[in-house]
Amino acid sequence: MSGLKIVVIGGGSSYTPELIDGFIRRAAELPVAEICLVDILAGQHKLDIVADLARRMLTRIGLDSKITTTMDRAAALQGADFVVTQFRVGGLAARARDERFPLQYGVLGQETTGPGGFAKALRTIPVILDICRDMTKICPEAWLINFTNPAGLITESVLTYTKVKCLGLCNVPIHMKMTIAKLLDAKANDVFIDFAGLNHLVWGRKVWHRGIDVTASVLEKMQDGAALTMKNIPDLKWDGDFLRSLGMVPCPYHRYYYMTDSILAEEQAAATTGGAGTRAEIVQAVEENLFKLYQTPELAEKPAELEKRGGAYYSDAAVSLISAIYNDKREIHTVNTVNQGAISGLPTNCVIETNCVISKNGARPLTVGTLPPEIAGLVQQVKAYEMLAVEAGVHGDSNKALQALANHPLIPSVRVAKQLLADLLSLNAAYLPQFKD
Amino acid sequence: MSGLKIVVIGGGSSYTPELIDGFIRRAAELPVAEICLVDILAGQHKLDIVADLARRMLTRIGLDSKITTTMDRAAALQGADFVVTQFRVGGLAARARDERFPLQYGVLGQETTGPGGFAKALRTIPVILDICRDMTKICPEAWLINFTNPAGLITESVLTYTKVKCLGLCNVPIHMKMTIAKLLDAKANDVFIDFAGLNHLVWGRKVWHRGIDVTASVLEKMQDGAALTMKNIPDLKWDGDFLRSLGMVPCPYHRYYYMTDSILAEEQAAATTGGAGTRAEIVQAVEENLFKLYQTPELAEKPAELEKRGGAYYSDAAVSLISAIYNDKREIHTVNTVNQGAISGLPTNCVIETNCVISKNGARPLTVGTLPPEIAGLVQQVKAYEMLAVEAGVHGDSNKALQALANHPLIPSVRVAKQLLADLLSLNAAYLPQFKD
Amino acid sequence: MSGLKIVVIGGGSSYTPELIDGFIRRAAELPVAEICLVDILAGQHKLDIVADLARRMLTRIGLDSKITTTMDRAAALQGADFVVTQFRVGGLAARARDERFPLQYGVLGQETTGPGGFAKALRTIPVILDICRDMTKICPEAWLINFTNPAGLITESVLTYTKVKCLGLCNVPIHMKMTIAKLLDAKANDVFIDFAGLNHLVWGRKVWHRGIDVTASVLEKMQDGAALTMKNIPDLKWDGDFLRSLGMVPCPYHRYYYMTDSILAEEQAAATTGGAGTRAEIVQAVEENLFKLYQTPELAEKPAELEKRGGAYYSDAAVSLISAIYNDKREIHTVNTVNQGAISGLPTNCVIETNCVISKNGARPLTVGTLPPEIAGLVQQVKAYEMLAVEAGVHGDSNKALQALANHPLIPSVRVAKQLLADLLSLNAAYLPQFKD
Amino acid sequence: MSGLKIVVIGGGSSYTPELIDGFIRRAAELPVAEICLVDILAGQHKLDIVADLARRMLTRIGLDSKITTTMDRAAALQGADFVVTQFRVGGLAARARDERFPLQYGVLGQETTGPGGFAKALRTIPVILDICRDMTKICPEAWLINFTNPAGLITESVLTYTKVKCLGLCNVPIHMKMTIAKLLDAKANDVFIDFAGLNHLVWGRKVWHRGIDVTASVLEKMQDGAALTMKNIPDLKWDGDFLRSLGMVPCPYHRYYYMTDSILAEEQAAATTGGAGTRAEIVQAVEENLFKLYQTPELAEKPAELEKRGGAYYSDAAVSLISAIYNDKREIHTVNTVNQGAISGLPTNCVIETNCVISKNGARPLTVGTLPPEIAGLVQQVKAYEMLAVEAGVHGDSNKALQALANHPLIPSVRVAKQLLADLLSLNAAYLPQFKD
Repeated sequence: MSGLKIVVIGGGSSYTPELIDGFIRRAAELPVAEICLVDILAGQHKLDIVADLARRMLTRIGLDSKITTTMDRAAALQGADFVVTQFRVGGLAARARDERFPLQYGVLGQETTGPGGFAKALRTIPVILDICRDMTKICPEAWLINFTNPAGLITESVLTYTKVKCLGLCNVPIHMKMTIAKLLDAKANDVFIDFAGLNHLVWGRKVWHRGIDVTASVLEKMQDGAALTMKNIPDLKWDGDFLRSLGMVPCPYHRYYYMTDSILAEEQAAATTGGAGTRAEIVQAVEENLFKLYQTPELAEKPAELEKRGGAYYSDAAVSLISAIYNDKREIHTVNTVNQGAISGLPTNCVIETNCVISKNGARPLTVGTLPPEIAGLVQQVKAYEMLAVEAGVHGDSNKALQALANHPLIPSVRVAKQLLADLLSLNAAYLPQFKD
Repeated sequence: MSGLKIVVIGGGSSYTPELIDGFIRRAAELPVAEICLVDILAGQHKLDIVADLARRMLTRIGLDSKITTTMDRAAALQGADFVVTQFRVGGLAARARDERFPLQYGVLGQETTGPGGFAKALRTIPVILDICRDMTKICPEAWLINFTNPAGLITESVLTYTKVKCLGLCNVPIHMKMTIAKLLDAKANDVFIDFAGLNHLVWGRKVWHRGIDVTASVLEKMQDGAALTMKNIPDLKWDGDFLRSLGMVPCPYHRYYYMTDSILAEEQAAATTGGAGTRAEIVQAVEENLFKLYQTPELAEKPAELEKRGGAYYSDAAVSLISAIYNDKREIHTVNTVNQGAISGLPTNCVIETNCVISKNGARPLTVGTLPPEIAGLVQQVKAYEMLAVEAGVHGDSNKALQALANHPLIPSVRVAKQLLADLLSLNAAYLPQFKD
Repeated sequence: MSGLKIVVIGGGSSYTPELIDGFIRRAAELPVAEICLVDILAGQHKLDIVADLARRMLTRIGLDSKITTTMDRAAALQGADFVVTQFRVGGLAARARDERFPLQYGVLGQETTGPGGFAKALRTIPVILDICRDMTKICPEAWLINFTNPAGLITESVLTYTKVKCLGLCNVPIHMKMTIAKLLDAKANDVFIDFAGLNHLVWGRKVWHRGIDVTASVLEKMQDGAALTMKNIPDLKWDGDFLRSLGMVPCPYHRYYYMTDSILAEEQAAATTGGAGTRAEIVQAVEENLFKLYQTPELAEKPAELEKRGGAYYSDAAVSLISAIYNDKREIHTVNTVNQGAISGLPTNCVIETNCVISKNGARPLTVGTLPPEIAGLVQQVKAYEMLAVEAGVHGDSNKALQALANHPLIPSVRVAKQLLADLLSLNAAYLPQFKD
Repeated sequence: MSGLKIVVIGGGSSYTPELIDGFIRRAAELPVAEICLVDILAGQHKLDIVADLARRMLTRIGLDSKITTTMDRAAALQGADFVVTQFRVGGLAARARDERFPLQYGVLGQETTGPGGFAKALRTIPVILDICRDMTKICPEAWLINFTNPAGLITESVLTYTKVKCLGLCNVPIHMKMTIAKLLDAKANDVFIDFAGLNHLVWGRKVWHRGIDVTASVLEKMQDGAALTMKNIPDLKWDGDFLRSLGMVPCPYHRYYYMTDSILAEEQAAATTGGAGTRAEIVQAVEENLFKLYQTPELAEKPAELEKRGGAYYSDAAVSLISAIYNDKREIHTVNTVNQGAISGLPTNCVIETNCVISKNGARPLTVGTLPPEIAGLVQQVKAYEMLAVEAGVHGDSNKALQALANHPLIPSVRVAKQLLADLLSLNAAYLPQFKD
C-alpha cells in the first residue's frame, strides 16, 4: 500500500478532530492513506459529523488521506496498520453513573479511579478482548494503541490474555511535561522527566532541565495549585511540606489519593441538587456544544473549544508514538507496557507506566529499579487492585471483584466494598455479559 | 554458670507472672538460674509486687531459680543469656493518648496500628536502640526476644541499626492457632498454619489438621464473630462472602483494615463522656485490680484474672521460643525476622512475620514465595509505612514521619496526616529526644 | 485399606533389600500393607530373586507386609500411596557406555555428571513422563519419590511437565551428614548442615554441632581425602587452602568440577585395556555376586556386601522421608523440589536441592537467600545446563541438546559438544524415541 | 570556562591519535578547550611524540583546542570535565607475561579473559582506585570514562568502592555493530542490536535492520569466520549449527569460551620458539613502527597503520559517548554500568554491559529481563568470577583470588588455579601492593 491505514475505534468521539490534527501536523513523517473511523450504531450521527469535519480539515491543508466510516469493525480492521481505541462503553451516561454511585457511601466517584474506574473496567474488558480476537484474525501484525480508560488495566487485560501487539497510552505524562516546561519557562524538549508508576498513578521521580536536576524547584512552584492539574480534576493546592518530603512530582490524579477527603467533599457538593453536577454531566453539555460547532460547514480546524473537553496533548502523544513505531525512532515515550523487571517489587508480567524506548518492535522500558517506600507501597497496593480487577473483568469472577474493591485504597471497609459491588453490578448489568449466570 | 540468666526489661509489667508461669512449666527443659526483672524508677513499686509474687510462684513449685530486681539496666545485662523486652514507654497513660488523639480526625486510635502505633514506635525506638547499645557492650552473645510493640517495626529497627541477635515475638499467631484448634475441636499440635505477613498483619494462608487442608472449613466457622478475636480487639463479625473470596485466614488485627468504619464508630462511642473509655483506660482499671490481687500473700500462682488483661499464650510463645533456641530444637515458630527473600515482592532486608525454623542460631524463614494480590498490596503498603516509620524514629526525620503517615492505609489524606503528626509530636514531646532541635 | 501400598519401579534392583530393610526398621511408624516390586520383562529373573529375599527378610522379623511383583505397571499403580522410582533405563550396559564415550574427547565419563549424565537424562525422561501419565490417571494422590538419576533433572522434568506430586531424593546429603558426624565423633542427630545447591552439586554452607558452628573444623578434617567420599567417586584429597577459601563443605561429586583433570586421568587409566574398568563395569561384577548371594535361602537380612554397591543410607533417606510425609512430621529433610524463591538468582520454578520442611503436603524449602559468588556461578551455570537438558529431553530438541552440552562446565568447546552429542544420540538411539524423525 | 577539559590518563598510548581524531570529527558538537595527556615518567618519550602528533592534527584542521602533557596527575585533574583512562599497568611487557604464563598449564593466555585478565585486573585496581581518590578530591563532578581493561571488572571496582561518576567503555559492541552493518550491506544507523551481557561477554540478542529482525540472517552470514572478529582475536570460524541453536550473536571474545581448545592450540603454537609470538609480542613490533611513524613531521592525521593495532572505532565510541553526556542527548549507547535490576538473575549492584540511555546524568540501562539459559549460566559464572576478582583486587585477599580463579570457566581445576595464582602473584609482585604483607 502507498500509505498507512489507521483504524480509530470509537471514531465518533469528540476527541477525533484532535487526533486528525495530530496526523496533519506529522504528515511529513507519517504517510497516512486512510483513517477509518469505527463506531457503534448508536453513535452513527456523531460519527458522520466528526468524519465530515475531519475531511474538511484534511482538505483545507491539502492532504489526500482518506477518511472512511463504518459500523462494521471487522471490515475496518482489514489491512489496518494501527488501531487506536478511544471508545467508551455506555457513553457519558454510564460515566455519570460511575461518578455518582459511590458518593452515598462516602467514596469518591471518578471515571478511572476507585469504584467508578472499576465499573468502567468491567464494562470495557469484554469489548477490548473482542476487538483483540478480531485483530488476531484479521490484522495480526497491527499495533493496538489503547487510549481507552482505565488504560493501565485495559492494557494489562490485552497483554495478559491476547497476543495483540499493544501499547497503552495516556496523556497524563505528556501533560505533566508540558505543564512543567511552562512552570520552568523552558522548551518542552529541554525537559526530561523520570516517570515511573502506573497509569493515573505515575510520579516524576526527577525532573531535569537540560540535564540539570530541577526537581526541588518544580516542587516549589507546584504549591500554588494552579499548576499540574487537568481539566477533569479539581485543582486543589498541593501542600508544600508534603511535596518537599515526597521529593518527587505526583501526577494530577494523585489528588484522589493524597486529598481524598477534600475531593470527596467537592464531589458531594457538586452532585447535590443545585450543584454543578459530576464531571460527566458537565462534559455532556460541553460535548453537545462541540458537536454543534463541529457541524459548522466553515469549520475546518480543531476548534479551540475542544481544549475544555480535556485530553490536551492527546493527539501529540498518540501520533508521535505511532510515528516512533513506524519510523523505528528508538526515542523515549512514556507508555503502559509489561514490567519485565523494570520496576523491582512488582510482578514481572504486570503492566506499568514508565519511560520506554520505542521502536518498530514496540516498547522497551528503561530500568527503574527499586521504588522508594514513599511511593512503593501505594503503587503495589493499586497494582494488586488492578490485577484482581483484570481477573474479575476477564472471567466475571465475583470473588475477585470483591477482593479488588476491598483492596482499593479509597474504599474504607469490606462492608462498603460489598455494597459498591452490588450496586455497580446492578447498574451496569447491560454491559457485563461476563457476570451473567 | 549452672543455668541461664533471663533479663526482663519492663519486669514490673502485670504480664510478668504469665512469663514466670511459662518458665515454671518448661523448667525441665530450660534450666533458669536467675530471672532479673528490670524497670525504671517510676515502676519500682509494681516491680516489687511482681517480684514477690514471682518468688512465691517459684517457691510453691519448688524451683530454685532466683528472682532479682534492679533499676540498673547495665548491671542486669551482665551475664545475660536472654533479654526479654516488654516495656511500654510512657505507660498506659501514653497509650490512652495514642488511642484518643486520632479520633477527632475520624481516624482509628489503636495501640499498634495507625497513628497510635506510629506514636508508640517513635517513643520506643530510642529506648530499644539504647538497650541494644548496652547489650552490644555487655552481653553481645545474648538473644533479644522483643515483645515490645509495634513488634515488627521495633524488631526492624534493631535488626537494621544494631548487631544484636534479635527475634520479634507476638502472641497473635499462637493465639490464632489455639483458637482455630478449639474451633476445629482439635489438639493444638495437630494444627499447622501457614502464616505469612507482617506483625499484626499476618494471614494464615492455609490451615492443616493432621496434614489435611481445612482452611475452607475454618473460614466457615469464623463467620460468627466470636472466634478469633483477642481481648483488646472488638469482636466484630467477619463477613462470610469476604472470607470465602479471600480464601485465607485474617488475623484479629485485620479488623482495623477490613472493618475500619465499624471499629471507628465503636471507638468514637466508647471515647465520649459516658462511654466505656478507650482500651487503655479499661486496662488501667484491670491493672489496678491485678496489682491488688498480686499483693495477696496467699497468691502463688498466675491468677485467672490475668487472662482478661490480654496477652494470652504470651508466655507459651516466649518460653517455648527461648527453649527452641537454647535446645537447638529446629522446630517451627512464627516470629518476626529478616525477610531474606522468603516473601517475594518485599525488600530482602525488611522484617516479616512468618513461620521459621528456630535453632541455636536463630530463625530461618520457610520460603513463602509470591503473595497473591488479595494480600500482597496491603502487606506492601503497610511495609512501606513501617520502613518510613523506622527511618523517622531512628533519625528523628520529620519528612519521613510525614511520609509514613501519608502512606498509612488508615489515614485518609495528607491534610489529616499533617495534623496527626503535629499532634503526636506535641503530645509525646517528652519521649522523643530524636526530634529535638 | 489397613496399610500403605508402596510401589517400587525398578524393583528388581540390587538396592531393593536396602529399601526393605528401611521399611523394617521403621515398621512401628509406617504401616505398610504391600510393597509391589515392578520391573520390565528383561528384569524378571532378578525381580524374582529380590522378591524372595524381601519376603524372607519380612518373615524373619515377623512383619506381615506383602511383597508382590509384576511387570504390569498400570496394575501396580492401582491404590498406590507412594511410588519409588529406582529404575535405570538401559541398565548397567548403558551406564558403562555413558562412562566411556566422553573419554576419547578428554571429557569425564560419569553416570550423572557431564555428557554421561546428559545421556542418562535423555534416556530417562520419556520413561518417567510415561510413569507420570499413568500415575495421573490411576493414583493421582500418590507421592512419587524419585531416586532415579540424574535426580535433579528428572525431578524438574516431572514438576515442570506433569501434575504428579513428586520429591527428588538423593543419598548425598544424608551421606555427608553421617560422614561428617563420624568425622566429628558426634551423634548424627546433633549435626545439622545448611545444605543448598542442586542435586550432586550441593554444599553444606554451615555445619553446626548442637548449634555450634563447626564448619571450619570440618573443613580441616576433610583434607585427608578419606573423608566424605562415596563408593562410586574416586577419593581424591581435598586441597586445604581451597577448602579454607571456600568456607563451605563441598559434596563428594564436586570433585568432578574442582578436580576435573585428576579424575579424568584416573578414569582414562581405568578405561584402558588392563585397567580396572569404569565404575559401571566394576559394579557389574559386584551386582553378579550380590544376586548370587541374594539367592542363598538362608539369607534373610540385607547382606553386608550390599554396602560396596554404593547407595549407603539410601533406605534411611527414602523411608524416613516417606514417614515424614505420612506422619505429617514437619521435620527437615534435604530434597529436590521447586525453588519458589528460596535461592535468589535462580529461576523460581526450577528444581533445587535444599533443606525443606516435610509434611503431608510435601516440601517447603527453608529460605536460603543469595548465594555467595564462591558457589553462585557454578550453581547457575549447571542449572542453565539442566534447564536446557530438560527441554532437550522432553521435546527431543537437538538445538537445546547442543546448547545443553555447550553450556556444561566440563565440556571444553562447542566442537567437542557437537561430537559428544552425535555420539550419544547414536549410542542411545534405541532409548530416545523423542529424537526420532 | 569556554570549553571542556579532557584528561587522558595513559595519554602516551599509541591509541591517542585515534582519540584526537574522534574529537576533531565531533568538534562541532563538543567544544574542547584542552586535552591534557597524562602519563608516568617511564612513558614520557612516547607522550611527547603523541602530543606533538596530536598538535599537528589539530593545527591541520584549524582547531584551537590545546594539547597539554604532564606527569603530575593531580595537577592534570584540576578543572577536568571528563577523565579518560586508557593506561596499561606494566605496559606490553606485563601483557606478554599475562599471555604466556597460563599456557604451560594448558590454559589460555589472554589480555582480558582468564588468568591473564585476572592478573591485569589485580595490577590495575590499585591504580584506578588511586585515580578515583584524586578525582573525588579534585574534580568530583567530572566523569570517568574508563577504557582500561578488563573494563567490566575495573568499572565495577570504581562503582563499588568510590563515589566517582563512571562509565565503562569498550569498542566490542560498536565493532560488532559496524561489522554487522557491513555484513548486511546496511548503514550503521539503520542497524540496532539488543546487546546484553558483560564486558567481553556480550551477546546481540537480536539484530534489527530498520526495525526488521534480521538475526537469523546475520547468524547465517557469520559462519565463514571472516566476519565479526577483531585484530587481537584469532578469526576462527563459527559453527553454523551452534549459531543457529544459540539464536543470538556472540561477540568476538566468545571464541575464548566456545572454541577454547582450538584457540589454546593456536596460542601454544605461536608461543613456541619460532612461532609468531603472543599477541602482545606482535603488538610490540606494531607499536615501535607506529611511534616511528608518529614522529614523521609531515604526519598530521591518524595514520592508516593504526588500525592494525586494534581498537577500531574506539574514538567513535568514546567521543560520541562524551558528547551524549555533554549534550544530554538521551540516546542509546552500549556501556558498562550498574545493573540496577536490568538483567534479572544478576546482583542488582554488579556491573553489566548493556544498552543504556545516556544523558547528562549518566547511563540508565534498558530493561533486559531474564536471560535465556543458553547464555544465562555463562554470564552468571563469569560475573561470580568478576565479583571475586574485584574483592581480591581491592582488598588483596588471596582467598578470594583463589576462589576467583577456581570459578573461572577456562580453568580446569583447583590444582591449576593454585599454580596460576602462585605464578601470577610472583610475576606481578612489583604491581601488587595490596598483596604485600
